[in-house]
Amino acid sequence: MFILNNSDSVPLYKQLYNQIREHILSGKLPADTRLPSVRDMAIELSASRNTVDGAYQELYAEGYLYSKPRSGYFVSALDQDVAPQTLSGKPSKNDYLPGPPSNFAYDFHPARLHPESFPTELWRKCFVESLRRNSQQLVQYGDPQGDWGLRCSIQSYLERSRGVLCDPDQIIICAGLQQSLDIVANILKESHSVVAVEDPGYHLPRFVFQNHSYTIVPVPVEPDGIDLNHLKASNSTIAYVTPSHQLPLGYVMPVANRLALIEWAASGGKYIIEDDYDSELRYHGKPIPSLQGLRPTGNIIYSGTFSKILSPALRLSYMVLPYSLLATYRQRYQTYFPSVSLLEQRTMAHFMEQGHWERHIRRMRMIYRKKHDILLQSIETHFGKRAVVIGHGAGLHVVLMLPDTSLSEVEIIGRAQQKGIRLFPFSDFHVTGQPETTTLMLGFGGMNSIKIEGGISILSQIC
Amino acid sequence: MFILNNSDSVPLYKQLYNQIREHILSGKLPADTRLPSVRDMAIELSASRNTVDGAYQELYAEGYLYSKPRSGYFVSALDQDVAPQTLSGKPSKNDYLPGPPSNFAYDFHPARLHPESFPTELWRKCFVESLRRNSQQLVQYGDPQGDWGLRCSIQSYLERSRGVLCDPDQIIICAGLQQSLDIVANILKESHSVVAVEDPGYHLPRFVFQNHSYTIVPVPVEPDGIDLNHLKASNSTIAYVTPSHQLPLGYVMPVANRLALIEWAASGGKYIIEDDYDSELRYHGKPIPSLQGLRPTGNIIYSGTFSKILSPALRLSYMVLPYSLLATYRQRYQTYFPSVSLLEQRTMAHFMEQGHWERHIRRMRMIYRKKHDILLQSIETHFGKRAVVIGHGAGLHVVLMLPDTSLSEVEIIGRAQQKGIRLFPFSDFHVTGQPETTTLMLGFGGMNSIKIEGGISILSQIC
Repeated sequence: MFILNNSDSVPLYKQLYNQIREHILSGKLPADTRLPSVRDMAIELSASRNTVDGAYQELYAEGYLYSKPRSGYFVSALDQDVAPQTLSGKPSKNDYLPGPPSNFAYDFHPARLHPESFPTELWRKCFVESLRRNSQQLVQYGDPQGDWGLRCSIQSYLERSRGVLCDPDQIIICAGLQQSLDIVANILKESHSVVAVEDPGYHLPRFVFQNHSYTIVPVPVEPDGIDLNHLKASNSTIAYVTPSHQLPLGYVMPVANRLALIEWAASGGKYIIEDDYDSELRYHGKPIPSLQGLRPTGNIIYSGTFSKILSPALRLSYMVLPYSLLATYRQRYQTYFPSVSLLEQRTMAHFMEQGHWERHIRRMRMIYRKKHDILLQSIETHFGKRAVVIGHGAGLHVVLMLPDTSLSEVEIIGRAQQKGIRLFPFSDFHVTGQPETTTLMLGFGGMNSIKIEGGISILSQIC
Repeated sequence: MFILNNSDSVPLYKQLYNQIREHILSGKLPADTRLPSVRDMAIELSASRNTVDGAYQELYAEGYLYSKPRSGYFVSALDQDVAPQTLSGKPSKNDYLPGPPSNFAYDFHPARLHPESFPTELWRKCFVESLRRNSQQLVQYGDPQGDWGLRCSIQSYLERSRGVLCDPDQIIICAGLQQSLDIVANILKESHSVVAVEDPGYHLPRFVFQNHSYTIVPVPVEPDGIDLNHLKASNSTIAYVTPSHQLPLGYVMPVANRLALIEWAASGGKYIIEDDYDSELRYHGKPIPSLQGLRPTGNIIYSGTFSKILSPALRLSYMVLPYSLLATYRQRYQTYFPSVSLLEQRTMAHFMEQGHWERHIRRMRMIYRKKHDILLQSIETHFGKRAVVIGHGAGLHVVLMLPDTSLSEVEIIGRAQQKGIRLFPFSDFHVTGQPETTTLMLGFGGMNSIKIEGGISILSQIC
């Protein structure tokens, strides 16, 4: 009935297991059939008792067999209609395969960093040191809120460089803004259901809050930031803002509006989410201090990231919760585990403690300032008065308005693509309506000077 | 009015900025006051024009000043009632500081791994190699679903070792079970609202689904797994189960029940979440194959982790979604970013490709089998017939029932603590009611043989 093959790479007991299993599942061995004893089966197959016993034990452990004391093993009753199936009926794999990687000569994507910018050698050293020091810690779960040492380093950096005043206790290490917002959406949802977002504005907060069943209220952005009258007139009780460098328009919210926004939040337990995603990158004058620092005890949730300066692929960010939300956070997340690898957290802490982080910021600021200036010069040279640049002086992109062109953004993106130029659609930032003027978003982080100049030259010919 | 100090470490322009800012915020400089010209102020302070211009520029950029063409800078109107505050009013830091680390001589916590078990040297090599190969990739966001190479390695491992049949397309790399369940809760919530969980069972799924506003239905666990009649009688349309090693009782769900559970899910678009958290650790006989492998096209969400064998601090796990959920997943998460560091993902992929992962499993299985056997022997020696052990033969803990003791679990945990023994409360696994018999949970991963024997000896004297 069963045949074992000594030259097969599958172990003998497993061969026997497979064959008996198949007989049971196909119904060839009906329920309650008594199997030969281990001894008899071993003789029949010219196999060792261990082989037979191994197969029987596994079939028994998985429930294909049952045993009766002093009677041996019997086939279990299985419902044949629900027998196992293979993958044959699955959809074609090709339906889901990712497309080939895009290959553009000129990539104006706003989320690209300088290609050689990751401090590989320093990171390697900090990692090896952190692994050496912490290998004993790797056998247990760490602090769900994040490594204490890293939180202390971030606290000190934020106070010194961003004017954020907080305790390490208020800091939560996250794997990117999406996770911070997930937590915020979760801990606020008992008493909040409407979120105001900037329009135009970053799309991720809209998606995350929608995924948590919030209503999204788009609020227009003026050159002094989110329109406060519009915000006050809405029924939203949470406002997501980018006050130090509005995404995508690059505006800075002046202090009067910041104070008014804080006052709005203070009246009636509303909350401000301050996304301070790239404020280290300010090319003329010093970085704009955070909104949180104006009212450290206010209802402000501050979010920062290492994605723009160091690497978006490390998935390392942080959030400062106001004390008023800490209890709810801890109650809801008490059984959760950390979201970021302890090794990566300790590596980052070490990187900061050694002073590498702030040196790296300065280095990056110089590199991007150069690219930024070349971009502006190229636009001046090739577009002249045909283009108006807004949002310059900071970050990794500028916004280009083309009041005279008859082409739509979609048409320009299409033409650009044919010339090997990748543009990220500015219209994706719009929640309602579209800009009246054709507007392009130009990220400059990922290209060198020659590419920037070349890309703008080509772009000026097709717009 | 303003005094600059050349020997102060704060730059001169910043000193001036700070002093003017303070005058504006305190009202000493009222709104619409015209500031002296840069030239006049420089003469007054005996400072350079650059110093004054730097201070003015920053105050202007932040909105403390406004400018009129050819008239200079004026103080902006700020609402003094809402002026910035410092941290003085914040709650005492000590209210939130974590307590001192607990220091137990005997730690029976079930989530502790063997202290020297992390493969530090191999991990370092794989990390350095992955950093060398991928430093150029670190300047952009990676695949939100996880690195393709790691997904291929996991697919191959799952097929070979766990009988899971899937495509790498179906695999999502996650930062632990909590994130997998977050995603599942999110993509199922449009058409599902009730989740069945095992009782007793793991607490994390209850918390995550509660955080997504699901109703939790506890279903009793029998020696053949979750009670199917009870499940069918409930109105739940999602079942979270641990079929290969029930947490905490250690039972294996036999194949007949697995097939019946699959059939339950197939009738009416219900879903099974199979948490296969530690099935690699089976000490007698081979690991029990997955439930997913019985019906790869069924409504089964399979979850696995590297936490139990490699390290819980790395935060590295994976989930296999059925094809029926992939479209919804992609639609809801299209704008999200990956959750796990690319470097860690590539390190793990490299670790698997080199064969280290499966060698490490075998090594860990031997180490834990030895600890497991010593624990059972110690219980036999010290408790004799006073204790009944269940859930042995697999994983990192066993369950000890003490039918004769008059002490409650809480009393025993308290007494044990006084003797330097840490016990994890078994009652935490119970959703409803409590076990009739006093029951202890004994994790053995974190202690060596002498500690295990010693701890059990002391425990037997206080129970």
